[in-house]
Amino acid sequence: MDATIAVAAANQRYYDAFEARDLDAMSDLWEHSPRVVCTHPGWATLRGWGPVAASYFTLFQGAQQLQFVLTEARSVVAGDTAWVSLDENLLGDQGGVTVATLNIFVRDDEPNGWQMVCHHGSVVHPALAE
Amino acid sequence: MDATIAVAAANQRYYDAFEARDLDAMSDLWEHSPRVVCTHPGWATLRGWGPVAASYFTLFQGAQQLQFVLTEARSVVAGDTAWVSLDENLLGDQGGVTVATLNIFVRDDEPNGWQMVCHHGSVVHPALAE
Repeated sequence: MDATIAVAAANQRYYDAFEARDLDAMSDLWEHSPRVVCTHPGWATLRGWGPVAASYFTLFQGAQQLQFVLTEARSVVAGDTAWVSLDENLLGDQGGVTVATLNIFVRDDEPNGWQMVCHHGSVVHPALAE
Repeated sequence: MDATIAVAAANQRYYDAFEARDLDAMSDLWEHSPRVVCTHPGWATLRGWGPVAASYFTLFQGAQQLQFVLTEARSVVAGDTAWVSLDENLLGDQGGVTVATLNIFVRDDEPNGWQMVCHHGSVVHPALAE
């Protein structure tokens, strides 16, 4: 499979797992290593798979089930590493919010394929939107 | 030079250029290409070197000269790509703020060495700090 397409598919699996609150699918996507980092909007950075996994466990217990509309997604493959920049548009009771996001993947041997090693999301302040 | 040390040095050049408001040094550090992305805290993502360069020009004109205390910096090299996760601790008139940051670099031929392709910073909400 073309690498850019495979990376985009891995990126989509992240959001599918999140919307479905599927901890197994989220676990399959992430590399289980100390080098992974995850920054949820407004959170301190979580380092290593243990704290990252725990954060999704907590988020998936939350009252609000999130739905993502993804825009401006661009994947760049550089050897066995790739990054995806995109906007997560979240619809909620209080109106919408846009989360500017950067995801990093590394190519692993099959069957895992591209695995997530970094996720960083931050809310775009309405006054600073383009 | 060991790649991890070279990446850490490139990362440090980013903050040196920022503190010195040195647009030439910042320009030398970044890859000048359409694939670069930059998300300043609370901002929408800027895509491509033109908008990214303009943002530093604007920031460097601002009244407040920033000073960064960097903590928790960890560099990971994966082939010709590397990412650095760190906390930027900013001291200001109104007390301190921590910016969770993810920087990505790609290896280029000398003399440029490692060049920045992504910068993403987001303010850590005090209630969500570790």
